[in-house]
Amino acid sequence: MTLAPADPAFRARLAAELPASAFREPAPHYVEEPRGRWQGQAGVIVAPASTEEVATTLRIAHAAGVGVVPYGGGTGLVGGQVMPEGPAPLVLSLERMTRVRALHPSENTMIVEAGAILSDIHDAAAGADRLYPLSLAAKGTARIGGILSTNAGGVNVLRYGNARDLCLGLEAVLPDGTIWHGLKRLRKDNTGYDLRNLLIGAEGTLGVITAAALRLVPVPAGEGTALMAVRDPDAALALLDMAQAQMGSGVSAFEIIHRQGLDFLRQTLPDVRQPLDEPPEWSVLIEVGLPRGLDPAEALETLFAEGFEAGLVHDGVVAQSQAQRDALWDMREHIPEGNRRIGAIASHDIALPLGELPEFIRRGAALVADLGPYRINCFGHLGDGNLHYNIFPPEGESRDAYRAEAPAISRALHDLVAELGGSFSAEHGVGRLKVGDLEHYGDPAKLAAMRAIKSALDPRGIMNPGAVLRLPES
Amino acid sequence: MTLAPADPAFRARLAAELPASAFREPAPHYVEEPRGRWQGQAGVIVAPASTEEVATTLRIAHAAGVGVVPYGGGTGLVGGQVMPEGPAPLVLSLERMTRVRALHPSENTMIVEAGAILSDIHDAAAGADRLYPLSLAAKGTARIGGILSTNAGGVNVLRYGNARDLCLGLEAVLPDGTIWHGLKRLRKDNTGYDLRNLLIGAEGTLGVITAAALRLVPVPAGEGTALMAVRDPDAALALLDMAQAQMGSGVSAFEIIHRQGLDFLRQTLPDVRQPLDEPPEWSVLIEVGLPRGLDPAEALETLFAEGFEAGLVHDGVVAQSQAQRDALWDMREHIPEGNRRIGAIASHDIALPLGELPEFIRRGAALVADLGPYRINCFGHLGDGNLHYNIFPPEGESRDAYRAEAPAISRALHDLVAELGGSFSAEHGVGRLKVGDLEHYGDPAKLAAMRAIKSALDPRGIMNPGAVLRLPES
Repeated sequence: MTLAPADPAFRARLAAELPASAFREPAPHYVEEPRGRWQGQAGVIVAPASTEEVATTLRIAHAAGVGVVPYGGGTGLVGGQVMPEGPAPLVLSLERMTRVRALHPSENTMIVEAGAILSDIHDAAAGADRLYPLSLAAKGTARIGGILSTNAGGVNVLRYGNARDLCLGLEAVLPDGTIWHGLKRLRKDNTGYDLRNLLIGAEGTLGVITAAALRLVPVPAGEGTALMAVRDPDAALALLDMAQAQMGSGVSAFEIIHRQGLDFLRQTLPDVRQPLDEPPEWSVLIEVGLPRGLDPAEALETLFAEGFEAGLVHDGVVAQSQAQRDALWDMREHIPEGNRRIGAIASHDIALPLGELPEFIRRGAALVADLGPYRINCFGHLGDGNLHYNIFPPEGESRDAYRAEAPAISRALHDLVAELGGSFSAEHGVGRLKVGDLEHYGDPAKLAAMRAIKSALDPRGIMNPGAVLRLPES
Repeated sequence: MTLAPADPAFRARLAAELPASAFREPAPHYVEEPRGRWQGQAGVIVAPASTEEVATTLRIAHAAGVGVVPYGGGTGLVGGQVMPEGPAPLVLSLERMTRVRALHPSENTMIVEAGAILSDIHDAAAGADRLYPLSLAAKGTARIGGILSTNAGGVNVLRYGNARDLCLGLEAVLPDGTIWHGLKRLRKDNTGYDLRNLLIGAEGTLGVITAAALRLVPVPAGEGTALMAVRDPDAALALLDMAQAQMGSGVSAFEIIHRQGLDFLRQTLPDVRQPLDEPPEWSVLIEVGLPRGLDPAEALETLFAEGFEAGLVHDGVVAQSQAQRDALWDMREHIPEGNRRIGAIASHDIALPLGELPEFIRRGAALVADLGPYRINCFGHLGDGNLHYNIFPPEGESRDAYRAEAPAISRALHDLVAELGGSFSAEHGVGRLKVGDLEHYGDPAKLAAMRAIKSALDPRGIMNPGAVLRLPES
């Protein structure tokens, strides 16, 4: 079915049913995305103040066959938030729906509207001595509706799971404008198909999330952080195993860092403190949260001693204060900025079965070396099997000379990921960037089921057209 | 669309493509369910030996428009495993697909076929010093395909989640006979709609799960168990909060027990040991699994002392040996058998937001008292907000005299559950028993979406016809 443009006649239809305050003037951020790959379009921009206004908007767009691009914080990295092609869409921003509707500390739940910013959710939970553990670099801008729509991950997935694991219920407007009232605060609810998990990760192509019941967790009694230099990725995995045998789910983050990232940091951001004199070839950043009665620093020292004894680790530092913990995380969190300043030819957000990670790292390095004299920065959430695997030009050269090679590099690496049972998108999603990857690497039966579900729930194809699934030929 | 019967001509079509060994003679268990509410039908019974044979079977059934009832361990309590009405279906048993295809201890994953029995999965994990934490009373009979299809819960949901939270990937045959190869062993994989969670909990109405990638966990370094008598349900919740502030996610089970259940036990199963001289009005059974360096019994004694100090608990026992731990769980696990021997008029598997539990228990008791001189046994997984709330005749009377009252009692209780934001099916599912409840209490937008999804993925309506969603008028 052909989409219609969000033109003045369509705007007039909306204006007849929505208050004037719901309309937004065009501003650049509504049609941009962080990496500047696409320029979006916006025929009309609406920022509803309530779920009912979202429903009205979708009902009118559905009747008119106008595309709708839901817009949260705009921080997505795969172009899910901009529609560069086809008839100009309606951009639907959740920026005015930011309330914490309810907070239930004793049941570890919280009801928030989709436009709430992640760091505000952190603050609200902390105010009740609770933790909403999902955290990521864009926390000051990202909105929870977008975080859920993309099933975002971040640094605490090892212990607490992805966005979907921290959501108990949703309120959403379906493509025809009906409201699904599914804000359950229940740990168990086996009453029909799992619509919640279908909308989570659908990247706005099946409806608009307007509010969510989030799961909170108690703040751990004590937390600790350490950086340990490990022999190699195999040793890193063995150390993770050792840490979990000791502390179980108390291990909340387990990040791997390659020397290349630390070299880039020294070069581009020399003020960022690095605790070890010599950047180790491989190191891991470990975060633990432990019950009362255990000293986190002591537990990490025990782990270090056992890892040293077993020949897995050879150097390291256990933070002895909050300032030292912050400094270790500060180093980890500046690695992407170092990358940006060097300038990557190609970036990859991949996941692998934990057991295949060392194999991937070995074969990936060999494969890239065969393709050219590139530098590799491999880092990420080892505990989740999630690597950010970025390719850089040789020292002293600009990436511009190599940009044409990017597709061949990515294809070769993604082929290896697929061979090892991994994923070409661990936490960033498909958006518009990886529609072709999904078609190439995705299971055909799953793709057919996805298309059938899309047609069933959004028969006019108005929701985020071209994201996740290619626009039908019109 | 009208279904066709699984008649001799259909059997002949199957026999042309399946080996003779795939066919099963009729046996009573294929058409029975544990509570004897329904008598199923079976035109043909097939037990494929491989995913390919499942695919062949579904392809032929799809072409013929013959209903297919997937059959696991047959332990479901809501009639999802039997089709009593309509043209006789094909019963598809997973009993021959029981292999552990792979076990990866270092990555805490395991690939099993759908027919594997839960206790065999426990044993295989234990053999690798790992834990598959989902456990329930029927573990010696229930098969993992059915456990996933119904998103089963059990006693460790508080810490480890439901079946869906312990599954990383699936292999399944979709209604038209295509195979979805989705056995990913990944913690993060944002590549399209969440088909895994859609099939989990769909009770066999959207396809047949043939294998699963399960998440395992490290065995906790130390485990402990205690029974504490609490002032009332409010005090039980406050004690849970206290326990989690102390031990975080180390609290793996938190079960509430009302005196009525212990009285029934003394009456019907006097050999089951009860540790406290006088059955307390309310008590909680607490299980913890803690990191190395903490003594679980000591931690539970600390909790008891703090709970006592705060006026929440007034009596209790902390197990000092594995035998004492087993005895406490033995008592808890015999409560359903005590109920069966007394004979309930009506049983309910309900979930409530944690904060609403005390309110439900107060108002539920008042509401039942208004309806008649009934006895209530209220027990269950308090930490998950999941109560088993069963209604019994007055002492000395038979339930037969009151059976006609059951629907009115259940409707009144389920109305209260709905008013408080709860669920009429926490862990048992909808099956055929609660189709009417789903229509009555379910959100209309969600129901419409479910019907659209069912039509899209199973246009001929062959998969488990009449379960979850009512059979269309033919």
